[in-house]
Parts: sequence; C-alpha cells; structure tokens
Amino acid sequence: MTAGSAPVNSDRILQIAGIAGSLRQGSFNRALLRTAMEHAPGTVRITVQHLRPIPLYNGDVEAQGIPEAVAELRHAVAAADGLLIATPEYNYGVPGVLKNAIDWLSRPPRTSALNGKPAGIMGASPGMMGT
Amino acid sequence: MTAGSAPVNSDRILQIAGIAGSLRQGSFNRALLRTAMEHAPGTVRITVQHLRPIPLYNGDVEAQGIPEAVAELRHAVAAADGLLIATPEYNYGVPGVLKNAIDWLSRPPRTSALNGKPAGIMGASPGMMGT
Repeated sequence: MTAGSAPVNSDRILQIAGIAGSLRQGSFNRALLRTAMEHAPGTVRITVQHLRPIPLYNGDVEAQGIPEAVAELRHAVAAADGLLIATPEYNYGVPGVLKNAIDWLSRPPRTSALNGKPAGIMGASPGMMGT
Repeated sequence: MTAGSAPVNSDRILQIAGIAGSLRQGSFNRALLRTAMEHAPGTVRITVQHLRPIPLYNGDVEAQGIPEAVAELRHAVAAADGLLIATPEYNYGVPGVLKNAIDWLSRPPRTSALNGKPAGIMGASPGMMGT
C-alpha cells in the first residue's frame, strides 16, 4: 500500500477468479482450487472458471467475433480483484491449455483482461516433480 | 558427429516435419514454412503438419485412447529426422496452440515423439516485436 492509497474496507469481499490448468475431471489442481475456496476467509470469495469450453486460439475465429465462452471468462477475470491459478507443469512450462486461455485473455477488445491483475499460481502433483 | 558414427549418406532425403504455431489461414508463419519448403535443397523434404485438428490436452480423453489427429501428428514427428517450427510469440512465450501440441507429443505411449529430435524454431511477424 502506498502513502495516500485508500484503506482496505474490511466489509468488502475480495473476488478471486480461480483457473485450473488441467481439464481432467479428477484434476488434483481443480481439487486444490476447491480446497482454497473452502478454506478462504469470509472476506475472500474464489469462483472457479472452467477452461474446457475455451477453444484453441485462432485469429480467424477471433475476427468473426469472440467466442461466448471466451467472453465469459474474460468478463469474469476482468471483474475479479485477482486471479488464482492452480496448474500442473508440462515440459517445464504451463500446459498449452492454460497458455491458450492466457493468450485469449490478453487479446483486445480494449485492454487485456489481465492488465495489472494481481495473480497467484500454485500446483498439486502426485509425484515428486510437481509444478 | 562422434567418432565411429556412420558417414552422412548424401543420397538420403532428410525428412523434416514442419509445424506452424498459428491456426490462422493467412498465417505469416505458415507462409514462412511454405517458403522454407520451396527453398529447401533437394536433399531436404519439409512436410507441413497441421495443428488445427489437435484437441486441447485432456487426460480423460487420453485415457480413452489417443485422438486420431494426435496419433497422426505423433507418427509424422517420430518418423521425421527433425522438426521445424514457425511460430508467432504471444505473451513472451510460444502460443498455447503450439505448447498444447508439444504437450501431446511428449506423452506416452512408449517414449516421447520428441526424444532426441533435432528441432529448429523461426518466426515471422508484421510488427517490430516478432517472435
């Protein structure tokens, strides 16, 4: 908090958009998000956004109009106070599934839905080589 | 080349699998691959593989059986002597579309189709901030 910024209003609920980087039904990372939702303090609300309906980014598709699922994700992330990502690690990086969603979120119209958005990342793995 | 390795047979055609990281029909990177195909010497054959039919990686889908398009891409890459990637850069990284294909290629059965595969990457962009 910088000098002169408004004090935190403790009555306000902090809205967090949660995203899992795995599409698997039994995803450990989705379970991690659910756990975060359950354990969040009363002043924080985590709402999980689903990436399954987000298509692979294609500039031709975008030129015809933003797909509805992308517009919904974009709106949810833009409206949230922060972003919480739970993701596996594939090939020393984030999954294509997650990067694809970030690519869509970073596109116009107007500014990126991610501009200046506080974000956290975490991960769960059954192995020793997790996230 | 290490001591004792076989000499290069100049009669053999080097097979290169080409992949574009953009799904756009008029993709500059696909055009770059076509240009590479046209200018390749007679001993090199570049065959472009398409990522459009490759679905987003989902462990549940994989558990039901590798999708046909993924199996075809996997076979083409495994059979090639090398991989040539032409891709835009999104958000300081490879597009989700490309990472998603790499994620599929790196999965079992057996070893990754990418194991020990020589690879090159290039890119084309209409702007100053290219690839």
